[in-house]
Amino acid sequence: MLLNEYLASRQRLVDRALDDFLPRATTKPATIHKAMRYSLFAGGKRLRPILCLAAAEACGGSPESALHAACAVECVHTYSLIHDDLPCMDNDDFRRGKPTSHKVFGEGLAVLAGDALLTIAFELLAQATPRARYSTGALIRELTTAAGSRWLIAGQVIDLESEGKKVSGRELQFIHKAKTAALLTTSIRLGGMSANSTAPRLQSLNDFGQALGLAFQVIDDILDVTQTSEKLGKSAGKDAAAQKATYPSVFGLDRSRKEARQLTNNAHAALAPFGKNGARLHELADHLLVREY
Amino acid sequence: MLLNEYLASRQRLVDRALDDFLPRATTKPATIHKAMRYSLFAGGKRLRPILCLAAAEACGGSPESALHAACAVECVHTYSLIHDDLPCMDNDDFRRGKPTSHKVFGEGLAVLAGDALLTIAFELLAQATPRARYSTGALIRELTTAAGSRWLIAGQVIDLESEGKKVSGRELQFIHKAKTAALLTTSIRLGGMSANSTAPRLQSLNDFGQALGLAFQVIDDILDVTQTSEKLGKSAGKDAAAQKATYPSVFGLDRSRKEARQLTNNAHAALAPFGKNGARLHELADHLLVREY
Repeated sequence: MLLNEYLASRQRLVDRALDDFLPRATTKPATIHKAMRYSLFAGGKRLRPILCLAAAEACGGSPESALHAACAVECVHTYSLIHDDLPCMDNDDFRRGKPTSHKVFGEGLAVLAGDALLTIAFELLAQATPRARYSTGALIRELTTAAGSRWLIAGQVIDLESEGKKVSGRELQFIHKAKTAALLTTSIRLGGMSANSTAPRLQSLNDFGQALGLAFQVIDDILDVTQTSEKLGKSAGKDAAAQKATYPSVFGLDRSRKEARQLTNNAHAALAPFGKNGARLHELADHLLVREY
Repeated sequence: MLLNEYLASRQRLVDRALDDFLPRATTKPATIHKAMRYSLFAGGKRLRPILCLAAAEACGGSPESALHAACAVECVHTYSLIHDDLPCMDNDDFRRGKPTSHKVFGEGLAVLAGDALLTIAFELLAQATPRARYSTGALIRELTTAAGSRWLIAGQVIDLESEGKKVSGRELQFIHKAKTAALLTTSIRLGGMSANSTAPRLQSLNDFGQALGLAFQVIDDILDVTQTSEKLGKSAGKDAAAQKATYPSVFGLDRSRKEARQLTNNAHAALAPFGKNGARLHELADHLLVREY
C-alpha cells in the first residue's frame, strides 16, 4: 500500500471508531456532545492515532488491536487543544481555519468539552483488551503520565509562565518535550503495548517517538521563521509575534537545522531492530520530517 | 469507635494518602503542584472518600483496600469544584472561606490544576489492586461514567444552560442526580468494589448512594431557604439570589421536606441486607441528613 493510501485508510478507521465510541450529538445534554464532536471532527490529521496503529502493526498486531488506544490519545490531544485555545491560555479564535470551541459554544462549555474528552479518553483505554505483558492498569498509567502535571500539562504551565520572558535553551527543550514529544511518544508506545510488544521493542519505539516528536517540533519552529504564510497554510511568524520562544530564536537557525537533522537520523536509527517491519514507521517519519527547512 | 472518632481517623487516613500520592509542591513545575495541593487541602470534609472507605468496611474489606479509590474520587470532586468556580462558570471568588484557585493562581492555571487532578484520579485508580470480581478496567469505567459527559459534566452543563430560566421539576431532579448523587454513589460503589463485594451487595450500596445523594442535596436546598447565614456558615439565600432553581423554589417547602424524609428512609432501607455490618453507613447517613430543616 502506498503511504497516501495507508494514511487515508487508517484515518478512516480512526474517524469511524471515534464516531462509534463518542456519544451521539443528540445524546442529552446535546450541547456538550455537540461540542465534543465539533472539536474532535474539526479536520485533524490523526497523526497520533495513526502512529499508534502503525506501531502496533510494526510489532505484528492488527490496526484494530490498537484502535481504543489510538482514539484515546486523539481525545487527549483534542482536549489539550480546546483548553490551550481558551482566552485565559493562548487565546486563539481559530484553529485549522475553524472557530475554536469557546468561540462557538462559549468558554464554560469549552472547558467542559475538554474535561469530557479527557474523561472519555480513559474510558476508551479501559475498554482496550489487556495483553499478556500489559495490563489495563499499565495502559492507563502510560496515558496519565504523558497527559499529567509532569508532561503535557507541565508544558502548558511553563509555556504560560514564560510568555514575554527570555527562555533558556533547557526550558525550551523541556516545553517541546512536554507539549509535543511526550504524548506523541506515548501514542507510539501504546500502539506497541496493544500488540503485546517485547520490552526491547517498546524501548525502540520509545526512542523513535522521542526523536520524532522533538524533530517535528524543531522543524515546525524553523518553518515558522523561514516560510511564507502561503506555503505554511497558517500565519507565519506567529510565534515570534506572540513573543514565544522558538528553537531558532534561542539557538539560531543553523544550529536548529543541525539539530533537526540529528533528531531525524536518531528517529530512523531507533527503528533498526524492526528491520523491514519498521518500513511504515520510517515512511511516516519521512512524511512528517522531510519538509523544506 | 464513636462516629466523631471514626470521621477523624478516616479523614487522617485520606489526608495522609493524598499527601503521599500527589507530587510534592516543589516538583517542577512547582506552580501546578502547588495549585493542585492548594485546592485538595483547602479544608474539605472528605465526605466522598470516607463513604468509600466505610462502604469497603461494610463489605468486610479494610479501609486501606479502598484508599486509592477514595483518593481518586476526592481528586475528581476537587477538580469539579475548581472548574465550576471559574469566572466562565459559576464565578465564585471564595469556597470554604478561602479564595478559589483562579483568584490565587489565575484562570489559566486553575483550568490546568483541575485538568491535572482529573488526570491523576485515573492514575490513582489504575494503581488500586484489582479484585476477583472487579478488574482495573471496571473500576476506571465506574469513575469515567460518573465523572463524564452524561453525569457530573452533564449536571454542570444543564446548570449553566438553565441559569435565569424556569427549570422543570424533572430537570432539577436530573441536575441534583448528575451533580451530586452520581459521584457520591460511585464513591460508595468503588468502596464496595475495592472489597470485592457481591453483585447484590453492590446493588444495595448503589440504592443507598442514590437516596443519600439526593436527600443530601434536597436538604441543602431547604436549608438555603430556611436557615440564617450564621447557622449555615455560608451566605443563606445564595441560590435564590443567583436565580438558581432549588427544590423548595420548584416544589415548595412542604413537598421538599416530605421528599427529604422519604429519601432518608430509602437510604436506610437500602442498607437492610448488611445487617449490623451496615451500622457505620447508617450512622454516616444520619450524620449527613439529620439536620434541622
